[in-house]
Amino acid sequence: MQALIDRIRNEGQYLGGGILKVDSFLNHQLDPDLTLAMGEAFKQRFTAMGVHGVTKIVTAEVSGIAPAFAVGLTCQVPITYARKKRPITMPDGYFEAEAPSHTKGGVTRLLISPEFLSPKDRVLLIDDFLATGKTLEALVRIIQQSGADLLGIGCVIEKSFEGGRARLEPLGIPIVSLAIIESMDRETITVTSTDP
Amino acid sequence: MQALIDRIRNEGQYLGGGILKVDSFLNHQLDPDLTLAMGEAFKQRFTAMGVHGVTKIVTAEVSGIAPAFAVGLTCQVPITYARKKRPITMPDGYFEAEAPSHTKGGVTRLLISPEFLSPKDRVLLIDDFLATGKTLEALVRIIQQSGADLLGIGCVIEKSFEGGRARLEPLGIPIVSLAIIESMDRETITVTSTDP
Repeated sequence: MQALIDRIRNEGQYLGGGILKVDSFLNHQLDPDLTLAMGEAFKQRFTAMGVHGVTKIVTAEVSGIAPAFAVGLTCQVPITYARKKRPITMPDGYFEAEAPSHTKGGVTRLLISPEFLSPKDRVLLIDDFLATGKTLEALVRIIQQSGADLLGIGCVIEKSFEGGRARLEPLGIPIVSLAIIESMDRETITVTSTDP
Repeated sequence: MQALIDRIRNEGQYLGGGILKVDSFLNHQLDPDLTLAMGEAFKQRFTAMGVHGVTKIVTAEVSGIAPAFAVGLTCQVPITYARKKRPITMPDGYFEAEAPSHTKGGVTRLLISPEFLSPKDRVLLIDDFLATGKTLEALVRIIQQSGADLLGIGCVIEKSFEGGRARLEPLGIPIVSLAIIESMDRETITVTSTDP
């Protein structure tokens, strides 16, 4: 997705320790048109890969919400975002998985209420980053617990050198990233398109 | 906003302790078209109240993001969401305020980087709930620290019996809520329209 790649090249900053800062359009500030275009790009790519009949978008709070919302808007289906703490509104019997926190250290719990994910659902899983794949893997476990059908995984930015794709490929479902970071250091962020 | 009021009447649940559960379309699952309609309703209402020249939408993670995104999309301006923990990508000199956490207990810190809020900005502040108004008040303090101009405050659902509007009215700016809960108990949620 060229518009995204241009933004990463122009505004992305490598902070060391594998951290790419893209706060100006993904993790602290959002560009509405760019986000909407992400939703359209995901839909186009998944459709071209044979995905159809999606009934729900699943993501995790916080930074997955905006791109997942854009996909939900484009596909005209609801978005369910996993919570990191159990709110007092969440009933017993919730689906739950843990993932190591990449940017904060420690372990992050992810929880989804059975009210909003069921065996009837055909799900696209969307997140901001595919790095080690451990957060997405936790969301996959939640979707499996619910009995829903997972049709595909989409992430806005993939860091191809962190092995996440290899972790998820055994699922045998389409994995779409809109931009791939092949390498980065203080001087250069090498980002490539995944457009067909 | 009638579509919102219908959803609150049909799907809202009073859980006691002042807690209204609207997880099916606002706090855990999102309805894309309803959310988009919220954005359009906010724009219409603020425009009718003389607000113009908005350059930025400000909200707080997590549940403010979707309605704020919809307003940003409708107004064609970026959205900045306050973080609750300082990410490693946030530079020194951030704007910061604290608010008591309504649903979780304790105190919530809210932080915005000066990269994404400046004296040049003309801001609409959007959040999911207006209850005691203390979270919105913390966001107001952050906007004041930044030197940006606050033009209006919008919330999806106002609980009129918790006094938040009175707390914010001294600011002398338009305060818009799309639905007002006048009272609630286990049997009845009394919700009224604010449509002009």
